[in-house]
Amino acid sequence: MKTKKFLLPESEIPTQWYNIQAEMPNKPMPLLNPLTKQAVTAEDLYPIFCRECANQELDQTHAWIDIPDQVRQLYANYRVTPLVRAYGLEKALDTPAHIYFKNESVSPAGSHKLNSALAQAYYAKEQGITNLTTETGAGQWGGALSYATKMFGIDCAVYMVKVSYEQKPYRRSIMQCFGATVTPSPSMSTRAGKDIITRDPNYQGSLGTAISEAIELATTTPNCRYALGSVLNHVSLHQTVIGLEAEKQMELAGEYPDIVVACFGGGSNFSGMAFPFMRHNFTGKTKTRFIAAEPAACPKLTKGRFEYDFGDEAGYTPLLPMFTLGHKFKPSSIHAGGLRYHGAGVIVSQLLKDGFMEAVDIDQVESFNAGVLFARSEGIIPAPESCHAIAATIREALKCKVEGTSRNILFNLSGHGFVDMASYDSYLSGDMQAYHISDDELEKFHSHSIVAGGLEEMS
Amino acid sequence: MKTKKFLLPESEIPTQWYNIQAEMPNKPMPLLNPLTKQAVTAEDLYPIFCRECANQELDQTHAWIDIPDQVRQLYANYRVTPLVRAYGLEKALDTPAHIYFKNESVSPAGSHKLNSALAQAYYAKEQGITNLTTETGAGQWGGALSYATKMFGIDCAVYMVKVSYEQKPYRRSIMQCFGATVTPSPSMSTRAGKDIITRDPNYQGSLGTAISEAIELATTTPNCRYALGSVLNHVSLHQTVIGLEAEKQMELAGEYPDIVVACFGGGSNFSGMAFPFMRHNFTGKTKTRFIAAEPAACPKLTKGRFEYDFGDEAGYTPLLPMFTLGHKFKPSSIHAGGLRYHGAGVIVSQLLKDGFMEAVDIDQVESFNAGVLFARSEGIIPAPESCHAIAATIREALKCKVEGTSRNILFNLSGHGFVDMASYDSYLSGDMQAYHISDDELEKFHSHSIVAGGLEEMS
Repeated sequence: MKTKKFLLPESEIPTQWYNIQAEMPNKPMPLLNPLTKQAVTAEDLYPIFCRECANQELDQTHAWIDIPDQVRQLYANYRVTPLVRAYGLEKALDTPAHIYFKNESVSPAGSHKLNSALAQAYYAKEQGITNLTTETGAGQWGGALSYATKMFGIDCAVYMVKVSYEQKPYRRSIMQCFGATVTPSPSMSTRAGKDIITRDPNYQGSLGTAISEAIELATTTPNCRYALGSVLNHVSLHQTVIGLEAEKQMELAGEYPDIVVACFGGGSNFSGMAFPFMRHNFTGKTKTRFIAAEPAACPKLTKGRFEYDFGDEAGYTPLLPMFTLGHKFKPSSIHAGGLRYHGAGVIVSQLLKDGFMEAVDIDQVESFNAGVLFARSEGIIPAPESCHAIAATIREALKCKVEGTSRNILFNLSGHGFVDMASYDSYLSGDMQAYHISDDELEKFHSHSIVAGGLEEMS
Repeated sequence: MKTKKFLLPESEIPTQWYNIQAEMPNKPMPLLNPLTKQAVTAEDLYPIFCRECANQELDQTHAWIDIPDQVRQLYANYRVTPLVRAYGLEKALDTPAHIYFKNESVSPAGSHKLNSALAQAYYAKEQGITNLTTETGAGQWGGALSYATKMFGIDCAVYMVKVSYEQKPYRRSIMQCFGATVTPSPSMSTRAGKDIITRDPNYQGSLGTAISEAIELATTTPNCRYALGSVLNHVSLHQTVIGLEAEKQMELAGEYPDIVVACFGGGSNFSGMAFPFMRHNFTGKTKTRFIAAEPAACPKLTKGRFEYDFGDEAGYTPLLPMFTLGHKFKPSSIHAGGLRYHGAGVIVSQLLKDGFMEAVDIDQVESFNAGVLFARSEGIIPAPESCHAIAATIREALKCKVEGTSRNILFNLSGHGFVDMASYDSYLSGDMQAYHISDDELEKFHSHSIVAGGLEEMS
């Protein structure tokens, strides 16, 4: 019998996260205070984030950071996640490529998001924080943080992007089942929410707006901090357990990836899968290609600009040096709610700028074509976000077929789609439309988002 | 770090199923032809079931039956499933009991049902069958068979109990995503469906009715057979991979179960978990207790009668010697759609009669209390069906606490609840009512279901 799943015991759960900031050739440029234009310090971030997360955010020194025992113990509920050889998909594509996927969908919350949620809830508890707030798009992050906070006895308030709140009632129920409070965003409960509802009463929300609301609640509530599910460096750090495990599992399979693929919203699952492998490219030991698959409706990596911009709609965050469509960008209501974010994390932005990775944009019909083919060949219904990674994988696998070349392609199955069946309904019924945002629209959003002072001036 | 998950490699997937019929002290009484009252032969069943399944159904000779390689290869997509020590639940209950669960929710279809679906689809393919029909209650079985038939290139038509079709649209979408055709039952597409709609236009359906419709389609369509997801002996046989794996995994944990618990609809997940352990009770080597947890709204084991009855509403099946509420029983619309079946499998019925197992009935509010506590302590949202097993486990764990005794309790987590969040919504909002069916109602259904000829007369 051919081995399909490459498993490792709990004892092989990594004991340290990999901090790529310490080893990347060009460090990310500093975050800036939008008023003073001075580099932000960890202390500046303490009112928003837990101290340890703020420290990790700016740590460009330590390549390896210990995973606390309690976090590892909770990782053991679902980790080491399986690495799977996708024989079924290979056969369906009739490709000489060897396709592997890391199955993060087996987490209790249904996605990779729990890897950082557990760490952030732990650090909050250690610091004596009693409340965490956050935003959620697809609901994956909100579900993960709801569960993680419950594990550590912390109250959790989630602002859920309105379009997801309505499209994905089951995601809301999951968060409530874990005991969290869930509010659709934009809401009237914050100044940021009121402002945008006043300007656009029908606005369906975005991650950028929900982040503004959550930060506002965190900074105006005693003993409360904000937890973010993607974009930031410390989130990417926590996600590196994915790639670190995958590296050992690929060894079990006796192969090394020529191509690593993940979908891309803010960057957390991409970073978590890619960074541990990318460190061997830095030393010249390997030449793996890294492909971020973003939605054609929100193409910050392929069509955004590298500049200082806010991480949220209202402008509460520091200025981040990143590929962005502008913080006023309003993504269309595509089904992959978790990918509807205007910017990319600063590390990934620097790596893309420096040529260490690539990006492709995938329209949602292509993504669901890929997702249904995967479901019918591998039996797992992928999250709409993960469908983008599968689509990019299929493009590469079909190139292998045309060229008659075998390559090892490894993608991250970031989550399952059991709670996204309404989106599959839309696809299967033929209602779903392909959608690429036009250059004119991109220009319009960008011009509304320009932050005073150009990139050179500020850095 | 305490070990939480007990894992085994793919090579440890059982190579044989355990056929308890060959070893139980009193064999089940024969199935009877309702017209002739003669014992049914395997050949009599060939028009309905695939030949190999019909043969397995009546096999009282071979204790071990080889699992075909292709089935084992597909089992490897998700098996060996984890055995998990529920430290979180133990802590939440403050019990000295050691609680373990076998996590069948990690299957691609989200439940244990795939264990038999893959076997049945394989045997159909081997026989040259091109179409399979089935019924589904909760949608777990339908989803599993949809996936399994897709793997073997067989067309699949599913009759889905109407109340589930409406309560669980995501389950329907999952089946469609795997390429199956789904019809709400009762439907106008069969005589059986038409008859019952004529009598009761608002009838919300039951497994018994859906079975009638599926059998009718199978027996009136060329090259088509019927596949059942529970109740029957060959289905229980295929499910024994659960208990066989669990036995090895409990060895890894260094313990043996004092109590084995599973929820009970028709008996497939209970049988699969219990039978491999029960064989050691037969020889006197162990004294494990086996508890079937059924819904208080459909209490065939605790309040049914042991007699010959039909397996379906319309009376298309052979007469089965079983604990039954009567084949005309119309269960109330509880959320655990998979447990709304009027009868118990013939093997389980004999074992209950002979005192080898026990049964408890659980109302749905108690079951969701248990499910939410489990979600908040173990992080996994259980299927409403599985919540019954958790509730029965909690009862036993609390008894241990009162008695100050530690026992090893093993339950089967038959499936996850990601697609059942509407039911959790109902519970969390306080709308859900506890419900026990009254003795008067049970009597009424029973009196409408009496099959001509008593048990003694026929057997």
